[in-house]
Amino acid sequence: MSKAVQTAVLGITGYSGAELARLLVRHPRLAGKSPVLVGRVEPAGVPLSEIHPQLIDSHGTGSLCVQPFSWELLADREVEFLFLATPHELSRELAPEARKRGLRVIDLSGAWRLQETKHRAVYGFEDEGSVAALQTQAEAIYGMPELHRTEIRRANLVANPGCYATSVILALKPLISAELLDLNHGVVCDAKSGVSGAGKSPTAKTHFMFAADNLSAYAVFTHRHTGELLEQLDIGSNNLTFTPHLLPIPRGILSTIYVRFAHRQTTEAIEACYRKFFNNSPMVRFTGTRLPQIQDSVRTCYADIGFNLAKDGHRAVIVSCLDNLLKGAAGQAVQNLNVMNGWGEAEGLE
Amino acid sequence: MSKAVQTAVLGITGYSGAELARLLVRHPRLAGKSPVLVGRVEPAGVPLSEIHPQLIDSHGTGSLCVQPFSWELLADREVEFLFLATPHELSRELAPEARKRGLRVIDLSGAWRLQETKHRAVYGFEDEGSVAALQTQAEAIYGMPELHRTEIRRANLVANPGCYATSVILALKPLISAELLDLNHGVVCDAKSGVSGAGKSPTAKTHFMFAADNLSAYAVFTHRHTGELLEQLDIGSNNLTFTPHLLPIPRGILSTIYVRFAHRQTTEAIEACYRKFFNNSPMVRFTGTRLPQIQDSVRTCYADIGFNLAKDGHRAVIVSCLDNLLKGAAGQAVQNLNVMNGWGEAEGLE
Amino acid sequence: MSKAVQTAVLGITGYSGAELARLLVRHPRLAGKSPVLVGRVEPAGVPLSEIHPQLIDSHGTGSLCVQPFSWELLADREVEFLFLATPHELSRELAPEARKRGLRVIDLSGAWRLQETKHRAVYGFEDEGSVAALQTQAEAIYGMPELHRTEIRRANLVANPGCYATSVILALKPLISAELLDLNHGVVCDAKSGVSGAGKSPTAKTHFMFAADNLSAYAVFTHRHTGELLEQLDIGSNNLTFTPHLLPIPRGILSTIYVRFAHRQTTEAIEACYRKFFNNSPMVRFTGTRLPQIQDSVRTCYADIGFNLAKDGHRAVIVSCLDNLLKGAAGQAVQNLNVMNGWGEAEGLE
Amino acid sequence: MSKAVQTAVLGITGYSGAELARLLVRHPRLAGKSPVLVGRVEPAGVPLSEIHPQLIDSHGTGSLCVQPFSWELLADREVEFLFLATPHELSRELAPEARKRGLRVIDLSGAWRLQETKHRAVYGFEDEGSVAALQTQAEAIYGMPELHRTEIRRANLVANPGCYATSVILALKPLISAELLDLNHGVVCDAKSGVSGAGKSPTAKTHFMFAADNLSAYAVFTHRHTGELLEQLDIGSNNLTFTPHLLPIPRGILSTIYVRFAHRQTTEAIEACYRKFFNNSPMVRFTGTRLPQIQDSVRTCYADIGFNLAKDGHRAVIVSCLDNLLKGAAGQAVQNLNVMNGWGEAEGLE
Repeated sequence: MSKAVQTAVLGITGYSGAELARLLVRHPRLAGKSPVLVGRVEPAGVPLSEIHPQLIDSHGTGSLCVQPFSWELLADREVEFLFLATPHELSRELAPEARKRGLRVIDLSGAWRLQETKHRAVYGFEDEGSVAALQTQAEAIYGMPELHRTEIRRANLVANPGCYATSVILALKPLISAELLDLNHGVVCDAKSGVSGAGKSPTAKTHFMFAADNLSAYAVFTHRHTGELLEQLDIGSNNLTFTPHLLPIPRGILSTIYVRFAHRQTTEAIEACYRKFFNNSPMVRFTGTRLPQIQDSVRTCYADIGFNLAKDGHRAVIVSCLDNLLKGAAGQAVQNLNVMNGWGEAEGLE
Repeated sequence: MSKAVQTAVLGITGYSGAELARLLVRHPRLAGKSPVLVGRVEPAGVPLSEIHPQLIDSHGTGSLCVQPFSWELLADREVEFLFLATPHELSRELAPEARKRGLRVIDLSGAWRLQETKHRAVYGFEDEGSVAALQTQAEAIYGMPELHRTEIRRANLVANPGCYATSVILALKPLISAELLDLNHGVVCDAKSGVSGAGKSPTAKTHFMFAADNLSAYAVFTHRHTGELLEQLDIGSNNLTFTPHLLPIPRGILSTIYVRFAHRQTTEAIEACYRKFFNNSPMVRFTGTRLPQIQDSVRTCYADIGFNLAKDGHRAVIVSCLDNLLKGAAGQAVQNLNVMNGWGEAEGLE
Repeated sequence: MSKAVQTAVLGITGYSGAELARLLVRHPRLAGKSPVLVGRVEPAGVPLSEIHPQLIDSHGTGSLCVQPFSWELLADREVEFLFLATPHELSRELAPEARKRGLRVIDLSGAWRLQETKHRAVYGFEDEGSVAALQTQAEAIYGMPELHRTEIRRANLVANPGCYATSVILALKPLISAELLDLNHGVVCDAKSGVSGAGKSPTAKTHFMFAADNLSAYAVFTHRHTGELLEQLDIGSNNLTFTPHLLPIPRGILSTIYVRFAHRQTTEAIEACYRKFFNNSPMVRFTGTRLPQIQDSVRTCYADIGFNLAKDGHRAVIVSCLDNLLKGAAGQAVQNLNVMNGWGEAEGLE
Repeated sequence: MSKAVQTAVLGITGYSGAELARLLVRHPRLAGKSPVLVGRVEPAGVPLSEIHPQLIDSHGTGSLCVQPFSWELLADREVEFLFLATPHELSRELAPEARKRGLRVIDLSGAWRLQETKHRAVYGFEDEGSVAALQTQAEAIYGMPELHRTEIRRANLVANPGCYATSVILALKPLISAELLDLNHGVVCDAKSGVSGAGKSPTAKTHFMFAADNLSAYAVFTHRHTGELLEQLDIGSNNLTFTPHLLPIPRGILSTIYVRFAHRQTTEAIEACYRKFFNNSPMVRFTGTRLPQIQDSVRTCYADIGFNLAKDGHRAVIVSCLDNLLKGAAGQAVQNLNVMNGWGEAEGLE
């Protein structure tokens, strides 16, 4: 077994940061190397359990204390891997510096996911076009091991995918790679997410009175994750429609995806396509024609994918479920850590 | 004002029956003519408030008593309009007899909604093909006033639409009637319903532990309401995909519908199309590009419909919301009663 | 029928304000006299439906527009009754002025509910002890018609009770008035409220992620409504324990109240006591030994009260349910309006 | 380390059985000794993941298969510890036979918890008074390690406590043992439980439409767990009032407990009392004056207990939270297994 590596997490006040801390503390490869938790606003020395009361006594996670962020602290603690669970503006600022200092970075924000300038436009990055930004972007790898395992292994900057994007890309990539789809007919992705996806800040949308007993579509044709879908699936923007909805539940995403095949298919052929693609992917559970539901996936680090084929053999409905904070964020980040270190991809995630 | 008519409701133990009783009791045109509530299993003389405690003292609805069903009772009470809030098998049995006795029937089940034998097959009616069934079917009118107002006015048997079907048909009919859609590209209807849509019987699916904090797709490619969609929209079965989901909320349906236009469209043109179609339809609230959400529609008798057009002008996402027990069942049934009597279509529904 | 009176509502952005507007618009005694809606922060001319989308088309409530507050506007519109659905600080400021101008005021805040200085201390009023405040307080009547019907009829300033206080006082007052309780043994009031009771501002406590799938006690021994309980029930502070809890539901309060009798009681005697006390109180539904639950009371203007007596005849558990926005706020305010005008107490509330 | 012991679980279809299987599979002391899962109704060979889909791939729990129950099977597999997650009638039947065969039994039902005949009456056991039943009862130990650690270590039949009872007894025992309470004044226990406490069978009470957006009190003065409270706390039935409520959440219990002290107390004295009592009890987290809430305790095996003292020093409100399926059932059962084997009490529970 390789020796334990030192990790640090910046930004543990959010939901993803808390899950990340929890996963790292109990990771078998990190035994004895608690993650260094750093913050920019939290008062120094606050135990994590005060910020996230549910973490008390859970493998000692709660007793970890948050420290004020500084590059010196990271150097003193000999941090090798820095997780950024920060807003994308902050990740744009910190990742280039972290790279300069030799840290390997796993960024959970949208800062470095997009290769094409037109797709990045939606974020309105202030440093867009700067040399540092372009250099950093050039070494960023989209952190979905099921697609980019080899590149992630050597990567120094991993852009951890968006939660919605993970759920849709994993469902579609096998069929698109195998050239089974008639993309001219268009792909429809109807996605639904629990409220934790909207973040920890209290807003009108996260108010219980708005979210409970409700369902609402939002950001139709304009959601930021669309760029990730188009780049990773290599599909034209007119051929993919993505609609997110806010579900009245704490966590979980279910995406219902509608495709049309270029040629008549059988259930067996589609099953074979998925099984082949995910053959060495322990964090995807392909369920065949049994459709997954949110309860199956929540509080796990898996993505669950199933489908039903129409009698005509030309249309399928694919259902993809995951926990937006785990396979959709912190779980996938740790999966990337595993790959970057050559460890078992599922270690610490079951 | 025409004189009050006498109504009766058979099957008030379910959620739709309760809403129906509530609406009829407070209907301004039925003042002084309480509906006759009849049941097949309930002990005689049970006040409605024992079956539905929330109806106590609400305009006196709760004090109405359920009586054992018999044709003689209906005759004695000079019932003119019979609402069947019964399982479809029972509606198949009772509607022909009710017609023979001269009653005008509004049936809330799926018994008489479908004109084509192939679409009815999913119900497996025992009397399929019998003379009585064929005769009864022949005089059944699909009870969606926005589409069939004229025929409903004269109808003696109104087949009240399914809740999902109402939500989808109202959203699509204006665009299909105006021949704006490229139907070859297919229409996708991703529908989500609250748990009351699954009925009052306790089952594994309606158990709180299954429904809460969950979302699940079901009956993919096979849901019974598909036949209604195909017949009313006059669209081929290979060109429409309908997927229902079970939402963790008590009531409400939101359907997200994906269409492709034959020619490039503008927002204004689509708005004009909807406004024209629903010009005289008081129970539809067209919201333009502001998308409705479930909270807007629940506990109202309205269907709310909005849309967003893609920048390419070729794709739109339509969102249609309603309360499955009201515009999706009892509200629409009373709307049909209004039309059958020549009353204002929205009377008693606001 | 007396002629319609002109009402105004200040503060319609909150949940209680919205319910108040809805009730006033459809009130049979106010036909043709829409309430004047005034605000201090809302831009002039905003239709109510933009602030509360669920009010669209509901008896025309949604089309009412909010106007900037000024005393001149109220004078121009000949407003006679002013509802203050404002924070208590603002009610302290405005009520004295409104009285000077001859308006009859129904204040929904805690500003004027408490007669004793020591109980008011918890609010920390800036004007405490000023002449204007003392004069205004002197004419304030606690607006619970079941207790103070006669005084409310003549009152010019009605202090509408707190939601928790309403639920507890109605349950206890009949037994205390009849001197049935052994108060030395202490009364325990364990109350649970839906999230709308915490207000419309997004906070950490109203965030869906905090409130959903949770239950928490708060303000133990210190809740502001305690003073109302002590004054209205005339009980010593050491003899009443009141604990509020936040329920993961949008609306509704259920209070479970534990009492000990001075002498052995029978179920019949207790029932008689309650029935006598509420004999002329149409907004209380006494349910005997059938305990009410939140679903029975929500979206009604009633308080529902039931009880169970222990076999020993010495202890009882009383359960009291109401909708915190209706009988706990807006509904009771309109009930007070009815009493102040000599109208039927339940008019516009069923 | 002692060698792994062989366990078996009868009755894994319920929620507690599933949690039990999950805990046993990942228990560090049982590595390599999967529990034998036996059932009376399930078809042989069904993998656990079909009965509880959420257990798929979770440490291999899902792949365990259920086998038809027989004493021979248990003997063949050399089972030493038998968990009965069965209805109490079945536990009454099986436990005596299991004891005869030398198995050590941990029974999760109410079959063997009560020493006094009058308390057992509420269950109406058919074998009440039989020699076998009396003998079995005589060796049953109430399985709450915090109270009976020493006896449990040697016990051959452990009666695992009820979920409500656990939450109340742990909160009260320290104060009663230290003789701090004035029991004549009475203790009030207002308890609220999530729906999983009502069992997996679909009923009118577990229907989503009943449980959601609701709160209801039930079994007032008559709940079965009352006997456990009285026996374990050694308190007279007239001095304790226990009221359970059904919460609209999947899991978790919060009990709010009201006590009066014999003498004036300080916060420090009460804290000292609790800390002393729970000094060696790793599964209780005493939180001092910070009150626990359900979210803190759910999905953990801990009981969380906090309190607030009134200014008068004579009254306190104690809040006790736990997960009804874990510390309230399966977690405590495994805690008992640990004690019976002399292992660390918290092993496999963090």
